[in-house]
Amino acid sequence: MSDGLGQLFRMTSFGESHGTCVGVVVEGCPAGLALDAAAVQRDLDRRASLGQPGSTPRREPDAVRILSGLYQGRTTGAPLCMMVDNLGADSAAYTELIDRPRPGHADYVAGVKYGGFNDPRGGGRFSGRITAGFVMAGAVARAALACIGVEIDAHTVAIGGVESPRCDPGEVRQRRAASPVSCCDAESSARMVEAIECARQRGDSIGGVVECVVRGLPTGVGEPACAGIESELARGVFSIPAVKGVEFGDGFALSRMCGSASNDPFVMRNGQVSCASNHAGGILGGITTGMPLVLRAAFKPTPSIAVSQRTVNLNLGEEVEQTIHGRHDACIVPRAVVVVEAMVAITLCDLLLQGGFMPKVMRCQ
Amino acid sequence: MSDGLGQLFRMTSFGESHGTCVGVVVEGCPAGLALDAAAVQRDLDRRASLGQPGSTPRREPDAVRILSGLYQGRTTGAPLCMMVDNLGADSAAYTELIDRPRPGHADYVAGVKYGGFNDPRGGGRFSGRITAGFVMAGAVARAALACIGVEIDAHTVAIGGVESPRCDPGEVRQRRAASPVSCCDAESSARMVEAIECARQRGDSIGGVVECVVRGLPTGVGEPACAGIESELARGVFSIPAVKGVEFGDGFALSRMCGSASNDPFVMRNGQVSCASNHAGGILGGITTGMPLVLRAAFKPTPSIAVSQRTVNLNLGEEVEQTIHGRHDACIVPRAVVVVEAMVAITLCDLLLQGGFMPKVMRCQ
Amino acid sequence: MSDGLGQLFRMTSFGESHGTCVGVVVEGCPAGLALDAAAVQRDLDRRASLGQPGSTPRREPDAVRILSGLYQGRTTGAPLCMMVDNLGADSAAYTELIDRPRPGHADYVAGVKYGGFNDPRGGGRFSGRITAGFVMAGAVARAALACIGVEIDAHTVAIGGVESPRCDPGEVRQRRAASPVSCCDAESSARMVEAIECARQRGDSIGGVVECVVRGLPTGVGEPACAGIESELARGVFSIPAVKGVEFGDGFALSRMCGSASNDPFVMRNGQVSCASNHAGGILGGITTGMPLVLRAAFKPTPSIAVSQRTVNLNLGEEVEQTIHGRHDACIVPRAVVVVEAMVAITLCDLLLQGGFMPKVMRCQ
Amino acid sequence: MSDGLGQLFRMTSFGESHGTCVGVVVEGCPAGLALDAAAVQRDLDRRASLGQPGSTPRREPDAVRILSGLYQGRTTGAPLCMMVDNLGADSAAYTELIDRPRPGHADYVAGVKYGGFNDPRGGGRFSGRITAGFVMAGAVARAALACIGVEIDAHTVAIGGVESPRCDPGEVRQRRAASPVSCCDAESSARMVEAIECARQRGDSIGGVVECVVRGLPTGVGEPACAGIESELARGVFSIPAVKGVEFGDGFALSRMCGSASNDPFVMRNGQVSCASNHAGGILGGITTGMPLVLRAAFKPTPSIAVSQRTVNLNLGEEVEQTIHGRHDACIVPRAVVVVEAMVAITLCDLLLQGGFMPKVMRCQ
Repeated sequence: MSDGLGQLFRMTSFGESHGTCVGVVVEGCPAGLALDAAAVQRDLDRRASLGQPGSTPRREPDAVRILSGLYQGRTTGAPLCMMVDNLGADSAAYTELIDRPRPGHADYVAGVKYGGFNDPRGGGRFSGRITAGFVMAGAVARAALACIGVEIDAHTVAIGGVESPRCDPGEVRQRRAASPVSCCDAESSARMVEAIECARQRGDSIGGVVECVVRGLPTGVGEPACAGIESELARGVFSIPAVKGVEFGDGFALSRMCGSASNDPFVMRNGQVSCASNHAGGILGGITTGMPLVLRAAFKPTPSIAVSQRTVNLNLGEEVEQTIHGRHDACIVPRAVVVVEAMVAITLCDLLLQGGFMPKVMRCQ
Repeated sequence: MSDGLGQLFRMTSFGESHGTCVGVVVEGCPAGLALDAAAVQRDLDRRASLGQPGSTPRREPDAVRILSGLYQGRTTGAPLCMMVDNLGADSAAYTELIDRPRPGHADYVAGVKYGGFNDPRGGGRFSGRITAGFVMAGAVARAALACIGVEIDAHTVAIGGVESPRCDPGEVRQRRAASPVSCCDAESSARMVEAIECARQRGDSIGGVVECVVRGLPTGVGEPACAGIESELARGVFSIPAVKGVEFGDGFALSRMCGSASNDPFVMRNGQVSCASNHAGGILGGITTGMPLVLRAAFKPTPSIAVSQRTVNLNLGEEVEQTIHGRHDACIVPRAVVVVEAMVAITLCDLLLQGGFMPKVMRCQ
Repeated sequence: MSDGLGQLFRMTSFGESHGTCVGVVVEGCPAGLALDAAAVQRDLDRRASLGQPGSTPRREPDAVRILSGLYQGRTTGAPLCMMVDNLGADSAAYTELIDRPRPGHADYVAGVKYGGFNDPRGGGRFSGRITAGFVMAGAVARAALACIGVEIDAHTVAIGGVESPRCDPGEVRQRRAASPVSCCDAESSARMVEAIECARQRGDSIGGVVECVVRGLPTGVGEPACAGIESELARGVFSIPAVKGVEFGDGFALSRMCGSASNDPFVMRNGQVSCASNHAGGILGGITTGMPLVLRAAFKPTPSIAVSQRTVNLNLGEEVEQTIHGRHDACIVPRAVVVVEAMVAITLCDLLLQGGFMPKVMRCQ
Repeated sequence: MSDGLGQLFRMTSFGESHGTCVGVVVEGCPAGLALDAAAVQRDLDRRASLGQPGSTPRREPDAVRILSGLYQGRTTGAPLCMMVDNLGADSAAYTELIDRPRPGHADYVAGVKYGGFNDPRGGGRFSGRITAGFVMAGAVARAALACIGVEIDAHTVAIGGVESPRCDPGEVRQRRAASPVSCCDAESSARMVEAIECARQRGDSIGGVVECVVRGLPTGVGEPACAGIESELARGVFSIPAVKGVEFGDGFALSRMCGSASNDPFVMRNGQVSCASNHAGGILGGITTGMPLVLRAAFKPTPSIAVSQRTVNLNLGEEVEQTIHGRHDACIVPRAVVVVEAMVAITLCDLLLQGGFMPKVMRCQ
């Protein structure tokens, strides 16, 4: 089950970077959900590189095709198969990499694991391109979540060491829209663009941090013990290539706080139990509190760089210098914002169904 | 399947803080593994509070009983059921908490989720005490891993803001032994003990960071896409109560680095492909590289504190001040070291079996 | 996950025939279910051999102990661990069987699979005794089902070739009560008892067929494609040792009918859509129709017989004659009736939860 | 996970009868397997109706497209997505069925379960056409099995009450080839063809029984307790529409035998432990014995018949007479032979991988 995510709401990913297509099958989506291919396309376009600073010049329209599970514009309860074709692939640049694995890439380990039979073109199955499948599944999940009032919004909070100030959960969607890097703060955004451009000019790359905020979750979502909401969300988010850290609420900063400061006091707000602060990121004991869920994912710099690096020639068993040509992103963080949303959305749909919070038949528009 | 972890090597946890017992069932352990109850007991003793600075005065021997799956000192391939009795529980202190949920605890969300039917005594199922079950399963997993040359060692790298310097993976086990908080650096250890004592005297609590290092893993471990080694390990580690962040290799710090600095160059070492550095923490593309696997988990301060806090009286729907009495840890991080090892061990056994790296029948001593 | 059954409602079995105990962990049971140990005990007593014709003289009280998941007489949403101790085991008779596998038993294949490390005493993990764990889990499942109006009743419909006439689903529970072999027809019952006694006197054994009827299921239960209700129920029922065939509705007889005879016409009954007949056993397309669900399981004769048989001496690699001593059932079918009910109940709870038909919190008495 | 089958070797089915396509994703296939689209096509052609007696005149080439997971003619370890287009669909005949569910079909229960949002055209997701996806996955599984010496052959053993005599497992493939209904016995085959033709002329349908034999399995395949080989195979085979019974070895006939007759004596054969007979169908305790595995599946008559039947008009809530027009099989059993092989093959690949019997990288031709 390793290429998939989820139990009751489940996506199964397929496709390679330079194969025929990249796609996904989504099982367990409630029937009756009004699903517009245009909504899926919007998320795909957010993932696409067009016009984003520092992103690869590879240009693919990535037009979604929905092949099953839809009838008269609504989901049927049957699995949805969705795919985008691989059009702009240029595999020539990769042939020389087979024997000289790129540092920071999965080339070497994939070759060992699959006995050399893995598709090496463009990183094959280990390319960031497979996240197009995640995004299509995520778009379906987001539509289902929206139907029960759950909204997911991610934004860039750090790139190459440039950190943006905190942003109110309710303002993320609107404020990130103006930024080419999906950052809520205009000044930080400008400095992030600068940092990316600087890295690009050096032939280098930089990483960053994406924060994802979920509003509208009921209290009580999250299965027991080893399927708490942090466990399940982390599993999904770490499935995104280049993610090396995940934290909830104040995360690592909590490890430096006192309990008297980190505990969120319970208060009454409009007749409802609520919390005065949200250091816990909306989660206690692996279960949602009803406060906004807050998650951050750290992305390492994309490993494909034009700077000369040391690697080994596997055939000769000797070290060599390597300079990678081809089209690469200097920073994939802005494109990853919608991917984080997707993984969070898929996981939440699954947990909401498991917990009995999402109906099996939906009738909202 | 939510109370369990793993597919081929699987643990299922049961028991509550103040019920009869805490236990675990381990399925899928290879047959023929020589398993000594004393080895399980050693790990349980590391988790126990006895003599550790700042830990709860609750004293339980936590003597393991292995009820199934063992015959003539070796595993049989059948599920192992192991448990420890709950002896020292004093539930009186908790009765008043039912209507006044403790800030930072799962009391409130558990009450909502389970309609008020959850066992509230000592936090019930949400108590850190259930990790005794994780540790017993972890001891079995560690024995199986040792049999194929895989060694897991965790240590405390931060408490209450006191951070210890890096420690060589191969020296962790020896160097942490002298520290009452399982820290590899003597000076840092002393300052951590001080910080814990300081928090304890204030009736407050502090958190910290545990690092776990795994040596001896073959190259190629980790299933594809959404079951990569980071996804699976994070799922397990986030199942430990109080963990709010997980990172691999340089983790969040990678988000501030350049690709030219974060990529680990491939080199030849003793005729084998290796890496000149290990920023990736032994993982590329969700698959082990053969370098030591490095993971860090951030623990929030334990929420039970003697300092007065604000909460709500659920019956009256009004805010009240609360001071929690009872026996609590000022810092659970030192006790959590073996729990992190356990979750990592369980997850790795599962992935090694899935990948065909661990035999189904073992004959080592 | 192989020792368990179910996804959302899940049981995990442990224990061996002659080990310390036999038990089970049940995860995912809705919170708030009033659960009486006496109800579990009643099902265990039905499985026990006491007083049933042809059953083993091994006498064990099999008194259930519920170790977790229960608080103030109701389920808490936490896993239930339940067990019975092994008291009457006499392992002496089995020591000679290790090198001379009993025909029809799992001795030989278990030895091969587990490298000789499996517990051989009393068949170890392959003994019918592990069904005591199934029955305890089944009792919990039946209580949950009863709470939403679903009733499960199995009965013996054939033993040693003696077949009983059809019995109305609604009369099964009452009519089987008078029969020592849980058969609804008095005359058939008498002849079945006779057949068992005849086999017992010859030192031989006989098999039979158990039918299980489920009333009160809503229309629409059963997940798609490969998790239809027949797939899932068959998986559970084939997990009972000695079951070699499972059929639904008219089952194998349907293969000899015409479509015009086997199709159940839809009719209106009391303003509801219903079926005029029930050849399909209450299932179409893997989904419940609302008619009574009907399943039959074929049990082979228990392989332990006192008649001399041919086997091999594995040490010498030569064929030998073998006569098995010890205490055995001449027919396990009557004792298996409650086991079939248990597996059906566990599976249905899981499917009802998956389909959103069972609440996560129950409040019925 | 309901539209899929398997854990380590897993297929996920998608597509509807009259949608764009029918397809499947196969995860976990070992890398390096030489896979020819022609081999998949051969199995698809066996499922196709062309030229088989009594089969639907719907004519579709069902040309397989393999969209991922293959590189230079070999599997890569990445998921294989395969599909066939739906070309010959004529949905007009089905529109009137929405309010008048066909007896014996899933129309009614699907409508209830999915709130009326299910795709009704051609039975939608409940059409036998989705088995084209099963067959494509099965072809991959069979190729992997062949690589380690496991051969699967199914044949028709009964149609409409006509039963064929036993056939030696080793002769099935050759002997069934001459029969238009895949029956090993020429005379029975002729009578089966006659029975089908007779039913077809009456506008009626008939069912039958398919037997599947697996040779070359090692001893010891089958996971413990609830994942024994019978449980897992039954789950897969009951996923085929119209299957209402599954039995292993002598199956239901075992319930009428004595233990002294049904136990298969162990014997030495060519220096190996073997069995003198095979009443158990190659399985003891849910584990393979090394003898040929024998399974039989009972198919009900296909419910689509031209004979007038009673049903209800759901809109009016009143009973009506119905005569179904359109193209239908009078008997789907001959086409189901390869589908049974597929489900068995998929399940066995999964169990062989779980048991460590199949390598993760294959190098055979």
